Amino acid sequence: MSVEINCDMGESFGLYKMGDDEGVMPYISLANVACGFHGSDPNHMRRTVELAKEHGVKVGAHFSLPDLAGFGRREMKIDREEMTNIILYQIGALKAFLDMAGMSLSHLKPHGALYGMAARMEHIAHAVADAADVYKVPVLGLANTLHEEIYTARGLDFQAEFFADLDYDDNGGLIITREHHAVDPAFAANRVIDAVSTGKITSINGKPLTVRVETICIHSDTPNAIEIAKAVQNAVADLKAA
Amino acid sequence: MSVEINCDMGESFGLYKMGDDEGVMPYISLANVACGFHGSDPNHMRRTVELAKEHGVKVGAHFSLPDLAGFGRREMKIDREEMTNIILYQIGALKAFLDMAGMSLSHLKPHGALYGMAARMEHIAHAVADAADVYKVPVLGLANTLHEEIYTARGLDFQAEFFADLDYDDNGGLIITREHHAVDPAFAANRVIDAVSTGKITSINGKPLTVRVETICIHSDTPNAIEIAKAVQNAVADLKAA
Amino acid sequence: MSVEINCDMGESFGLYKMGDDEGVMPYISLANVACGFHGSDPNHMRRTVELAKEHGVKVGAHFSLPDLAGFGRREMKIDREEMTNIILYQIGALKAFLDMAGMSLSHLKPHGALYGMAARMEHIAHAVADAADVYKVPVLGLANTLHEEIYTARGLDFQAEFFADLDYDDNGGLIITREHHAVDPAFAANRVIDAVSTGKITSINGKPLTVRVETICIHSDTPNAIEIAKAVQNAVADLKAA
Amino acid sequence: MSVEINCDMGESFGLYKMGDDEGVMPYISLANVACGFHGSDPNHMRRTVELAKEHGVKVGAHFSLPDLAGFGRREMKIDREEMTNIILYQIGALKAFLDMAGMSLSHLKPHGALYGMAARMEHIAHAVADAADVYKVPVLGLANTLHEEIYTARGLDFQAEFFADLDYDDNGGLIITREHHAVDPAFAANRVIDAVSTGKITSINGKPLTVRVETICIHSDTPNAIEIAKAVQNAVADLKAA
Repeated sequence: MSVEINCDMGESFGLYKMGDDEGVMPYISLANVACGFHGSDPNHMRRTVELAKEHGVKVGAHFSLPDLAGFGRREMKIDREEMTNIILYQIGALKAFLDMAGMSLSHLKPHGALYGMAARMEHIAHAVADAADVYKVPVLGLANTLHEEIYTARGLDFQAEFFADLDYDDNGGLIITREHHAVDPAFAANRVIDAVSTGKITSINGKPLTVRVETICIHSDTPNAIEIAKAVQNAVADLKAA
Repeated sequence: MSVEINCDMGESFGLYKMGDDEGVMPYISLANVACGFHGSDPNHMRRTVELAKEHGVKVGAHFSLPDLAGFGRREMKIDREEMTNIILYQIGALKAFLDMAGMSLSHLKPHGALYGMAARMEHIAHAVADAADVYKVPVLGLANTLHEEIYTARGLDFQAEFFADLDYDDNGGLIITREHHAVDPAFAANRVIDAVSTGKITSINGKPLTVRVETICIHSDTPNAIEIAKAVQNAVADLKAA
Repeated sequence: MSVEINCDMGESFGLYKMGDDEGVMPYISLANVACGFHGSDPNHMRRTVELAKEHGVKVGAHFSLPDLAGFGRREMKIDREEMTNIILYQIGALKAFLDMAGMSLSHLKPHGALYGMAARMEHIAHAVADAADVYKVPVLGLANTLHEEIYTARGLDFQAEFFADLDYDDNGGLIITREHHAVDPAFAANRVIDAVSTGKITSINGKPLTVRVETICIHSDTPNAIEIAKAVQNAVADLKAA
Repeated sequence: MSVEINCDMGESFGLYKMGDDEGVMPYISLANVACGFHGSDPNHMRRTVELAKEHGVKVGAHFSLPDLAGFGRREMKIDREEMTNIILYQIGALKAFLDMAGMSLSHLKPHGALYGMAARMEHIAHAVADAADVYKVPVLGLANTLHEEIYTARGLDFQAEFFADLDYDDNGGLIITREHHAVDPAFAANRVIDAVSTGKITSINGKPLTVRVETICIHSDTPNAIEIAKAVQNAVADLKAA
């Protein structure tokens, strides 16, 4: 049993701040670092990689549609090859800072609208896989979607994410709001324990859901992100000890 | 005697075309590929890398100030660390397409205003060197400037460029125009022969100049670029044969 | 009878050239000037406005999705209010150069993917209309689509475009290729005469189509743009004389 | 006696927040609204204009170098005509939202590095003036610099700014830090009273300085911006009553 906690990081841009990366870094094991297309810039990418290194946290690329003004949350119609190229560009850019830090690329995770598009559009899931083929590292995504189906079919290592700080609807879909709301840390921790140990949680309406958890995602821009991170980390530690 | 011919390539952007890369590629041995900050985009970077591969041409990163609207030709005040980060980001991005093509990064060459700034500003030359330290590949630049002084002092492999299709002023400086003008191919070829075999050329005003040639630069957006490329390639071949 | 000839103009960006604006300007009466979001920049916008003024050509805003890399041809999911704001920003930017030149804004025309989206998505057609309401100038678009339906219903002055240099499919839709191909000027001119005088043309497959022509669009980046422009201008002059 | 309080506003970008515009708006009379080149975007520009309108605050254009990643604080080498065009583009873009709101453009104020460049580089001060000539509205700037000299010589209405929340060095120059620090509101208010009523303040080292105050600038991203705004507004009200 070794469930990793992952968190989207390095999304600040120039003088603009996003998320409490320094506060959350001690509680996670995988940092998904933004690559400059929805957030981040070369300075923040380097600092985030260095911060991760200090904390022994592994770094993956968190790539996006090219849309800084929309934080990568506006869908764009892009064909498979162009999408692959856009993804490769970002992964490569991040890898430069890993090369500088003497670290290796740990994993991949699409961001925002691209995450959603890869879950339900074949050509986008294949574009992610085409890029992943170059690096042969695990791809994080949502179980029971094209993430799982296509990455797995192509021999890539797919890792199913469970979202500790987001609600699930009655169909097992995520309820995503424009800005993240505070979540009760105890509730988040208990749900993680349920998800990991039983594979069962309840939807926002109380409906039972089956989930699979290979890695747990938390967000650094939730108002009480550090409390949630601590509680989830403790829950995971307890599960390991059990 | 093995003088390489290098050319700035892959500077088209979206639907906008710049340079006749396909026409010139057969005549060069090093392609300096733009990385998206002054020209190029993920699609053109991939295509240019693939084109270079087909022709057995080695690929280096041609990185720039972040200035697409100014084609990297407007100086910006940027400190050493930020400049290094901006450079690393671009090299990494290009390397992704080399990784995909199974090629390795051959060399580095700053573009436009950054090239000029590195020639005369210590903190910028060091920024280039800080990035080059990560990759340990040769850096192309202008002899007898901070390019040579700082890269060499730091143990990097510096390669002196001679410009076949640009004029030199009486101090040995390059005369750079906003757009490249047609050049007589025979004149360019003869000057290359003089430069390589004797180390002596004449300035635009007929003054004798001493030059050092480890690699010859031609431009793909000169109106008669292919004729120049052919003539220079023949000249280099003749020199080798001699 | 006064059919205006309109042309998309000012789409060059930095050192990148697009279209032969100087060649085509003498033959048109309306210039749709790009506003920096799919093409153009402040320098080219000013020059294009000044060029139009020299030729007595009226200037309208040719606004786009925010997508320079994709030349405004990749659809993006944007809601009505944000779309209106993006459009207003561009119209205002162009108006600054008209203010400087002592000219007034003549008309509006969405570009590329936005043109297509406004033709078939209600919230986008309304977003265009929301922006047009501020300026009360005509909006150019495709007859029998939401362009006509929504702009007209909201009391705006809609002007139906006929495309002299593009083919129509059997349903009256435009056949748009990534790059424009050369067209026989005589064919273009004859089709314009048919369209204006009889309202009837044939599709690419020879099927009869009914069209409405309040303004004729030609493109400045078609390989033989000037010949087409001349031929179409002559055709329109003949129709007026008749 | 009618000293206006001005504040840089609307600098948030996409999901990124900058400054407490809603908190500060009630205490000012002039809003300098960012135009998308160093901060802001069409959505934030519209909202800021609407917020200003609700509070009866006049709106001016706060234009910048084209440098979102550097928040307009990195100098760029740009010639006079291009600089004018870049400025016009931004003023026009803002004016679209004023047109929509039925407001008129109140004033102009360069941002960041451009403000400093216009204070000491003739061609940049002239570029600002070239743009201001189109609109004939006051330009805010620093007294005893090229702002005053050139704008005044060209017949423009120059308004001297006093900075309530920044320290002055012994030569009367501003001490600008990358991020604004909290300032004692009572200190700021008293200094405003001294500056307005006597034209005399002391530098950070206690040296006496002579200042001219036609408008007072406060910043919305100082940590205690609202307290400073209140205190300065009260001070100005007391001065008017006296």
